[in-house]
Amino acid sequence: MREVAIIGVGITKFGELWNKSFRALGIEAGAKAIEDANLSGSEIDGVFIGNLSAGRFINQQHIDALVADYTGMATNHIPATRVEAGGASGGVAFRQGVMAVASGMHDIVMVGGAEKMTDLDDASINSVMDATADSEWEAEMGATFASLHAMIAQRMIHEGTATREEIASVAVNSHFHGAFNPNAQFKKAVPIETVLRSGPVATPLGMFDSAPISDGAASVVLCPLEDAKKYTDNYVKVAASAQASDTLALFQRPDITSYGATVAASQKAYQAAGITAADINVAEVHDVYSVGGIMALQDLGFYKKGEAGKAMLEGQCHYDSGKVAINTSGGLKARGHPIGATGVAQIVEIAHQLRGTADNRQVKDAKYGLAQNVGGTGSAVTVSILEAI
Amino acid sequence: MREVAIIGVGITKFGELWNKSFRALGIEAGAKAIEDANLSGSEIDGVFIGNLSAGRFINQQHIDALVADYTGMATNHIPATRVEAGGASGGVAFRQGVMAVASGMHDIVMVGGAEKMTDLDDASINSVMDATADSEWEAEMGATFASLHAMIAQRMIHEGTATREEIASVAVNSHFHGAFNPNAQFKKAVPIETVLRSGPVATPLGMFDSAPISDGAASVVLCPLEDAKKYTDNYVKVAASAQASDTLALFQRPDITSYGATVAASQKAYQAAGITAADINVAEVHDVYSVGGIMALQDLGFYKKGEAGKAMLEGQCHYDSGKVAINTSGGLKARGHPIGATGVAQIVEIAHQLRGTADNRQVKDAKYGLAQNVGGTGSAVTVSILEAI
Repeated sequence: MREVAIIGVGITKFGELWNKSFRALGIEAGAKAIEDANLSGSEIDGVFIGNLSAGRFINQQHIDALVADYTGMATNHIPATRVEAGGASGGVAFRQGVMAVASGMHDIVMVGGAEKMTDLDDASINSVMDATADSEWEAEMGATFASLHAMIAQRMIHEGTATREEIASVAVNSHFHGAFNPNAQFKKAVPIETVLRSGPVATPLGMFDSAPISDGAASVVLCPLEDAKKYTDNYVKVAASAQASDTLALFQRPDITSYGATVAASQKAYQAAGITAADINVAEVHDVYSVGGIMALQDLGFYKKGEAGKAMLEGQCHYDSGKVAINTSGGLKARGHPIGATGVAQIVEIAHQLRGTADNRQVKDAKYGLAQNVGGTGSAVTVSILEAI
Repeated sequence: MREVAIIGVGITKFGELWNKSFRALGIEAGAKAIEDANLSGSEIDGVFIGNLSAGRFINQQHIDALVADYTGMATNHIPATRVEAGGASGGVAFRQGVMAVASGMHDIVMVGGAEKMTDLDDASINSVMDATADSEWEAEMGATFASLHAMIAQRMIHEGTATREEIASVAVNSHFHGAFNPNAQFKKAVPIETVLRSGPVATPLGMFDSAPISDGAASVVLCPLEDAKKYTDNYVKVAASAQASDTLALFQRPDITSYGATVAASQKAYQAAGITAADINVAEVHDVYSVGGIMALQDLGFYKKGEAGKAMLEGQCHYDSGKVAINTSGGLKARGHPIGATGVAQIVEIAHQLRGTADNRQVKDAKYGLAQNVGGTGSAVTVSILEAI
């Protein structure tokens, strides 16, 4: 199995981008990554795209072909593949790209993630997101994506493993970092009162506990580790890329305050990378609702159950705390959450941190970074570990 | 790169299966393949699913997790990944599975393809299929999926490379074979007059030139070639699995009577397998409209341009002709076309032919078989070559 490196990254601004089409966003992120890798584009021999539902958001299936076409790769008949795993679509696309290079079936691969969501009304958007949980046994019974996360939060508070304030502090941490990220949808720090007093979504979660609806795209370029120096001095090693599943419906799990798939994927990833949770300096975690951040920090092994919320509330997850920095990009909450793009955007941020190109949110001496991307309510999770060279 | 084998295959009946849910179909095909491979299921460490649009057909995204869950693999957190490439979704899923085993990142992989289409009205179904072509520049301008294929047929007739009768004979050949396949949606041979006189869809193509709307699922189990004998004596080698792209829109191609992606993918596949088109004994090709069969036979190198239709009309594509047998399963036209399942169903048929388990449609002494799966109007094509051991 060949080792793999990231030799280029690119990302668009995330937000309500009404003047930019899906095609334009995909081209922008892809072109930036290709330029960053010092490639012309014609060297790329495979493309993998993470996308939740262009079919429903913009009435276009088969966006693998669309991306190959609009990035100029169709004329060389370069194969392009779309993958979907709910909110983990980007993370899974990244893993497919890693697998393609590791297998030797491809040499230089572009991985993209893109979603154009804001052209639809809110009800239609929510219907798609609800369908990433169990449509028959959850959504149609009234258990929307928001209410499922609210039940997780209620259970945590009931068990005493997190307070309402600790849960809210996940959003505060993401907004704190978003203020430093010029591509973030929300570039403004907020006090915890703003989160606690925000309009109710599903008790106890409010508007500020919820990631926004976003448009955006992100891209990375991969090649065999042994070839990376040919293209750039500023590459990053892919130390591990693991994936795990769980039941589609939340009610079938033994414990709803922990995602077994995060635990399983992270254990596989740490083993493959030859490290432990204590070696991670910076991580992007899936705070689609604030409560997801608490679970991630515990399931990834950064904190014991009941301690992640305290650490978050005390500001220990800030980029300059000296502990593991969490969501320095602004996370899903402040950077934005164009669903298929999210997992790839996480990789872009971690690559910047390990390359030392994270500007005024740079984590000092970061050696290992981790990205955790979640589909549904933990029914698919990818955990990727990158290593500075 | 590890070589890969198919150690088990499974398929459901294809058709209008109103009494079977998407979940039930997926379980049936998966369980059959696992049983065929003499596995218990717990040995499987990765799942890849081809599916066009469960999001629109049954309002369920994230069916990777659904399949992992309903085949019992979620409890072991086995990763599952959904891929989509329009009509080539199944073929691409197969290739991802091959890549996963070849890379060493997985050992025993289940590849599934499934689609449940008949719960929707015809207009909604057609809207999804139109969206596998270029939604903005074709479908919204009135160039539906059917009319795009009709333009290809018109052009062929205009250029004199196929007659209307020759194009119709693709459907006759598929129906001829469908009569031998107990899982086919249509198990009845039809004379060419039935095709020529069928209700018009888009001139010159009629109802019998068009693959039906179908429900169904298919599955195969893969493992490293060197381990195959541990499980079964009746395995098949994956000699090659190639994929290529082309422009999303048909009008941007230099020649609309040939799919450049089929040519590119087949050349890569022949090279990887170390053979030529002349070595292929049996092939499943993508006759979503009859005209697709003519193009396939030419683009794959079985016949020169202008000669495929003649061969088809003369019955040279029958399983017992001694020439390369085409669509012995009944093809998309008679076996049925549950979109995400089609590419995997093609692999199932070729595996049966090479194992000698194709019953009364068995091609004699078949050594090499090929499957060609097409997304959109040739914007993504997979060509896989299997080899009898």
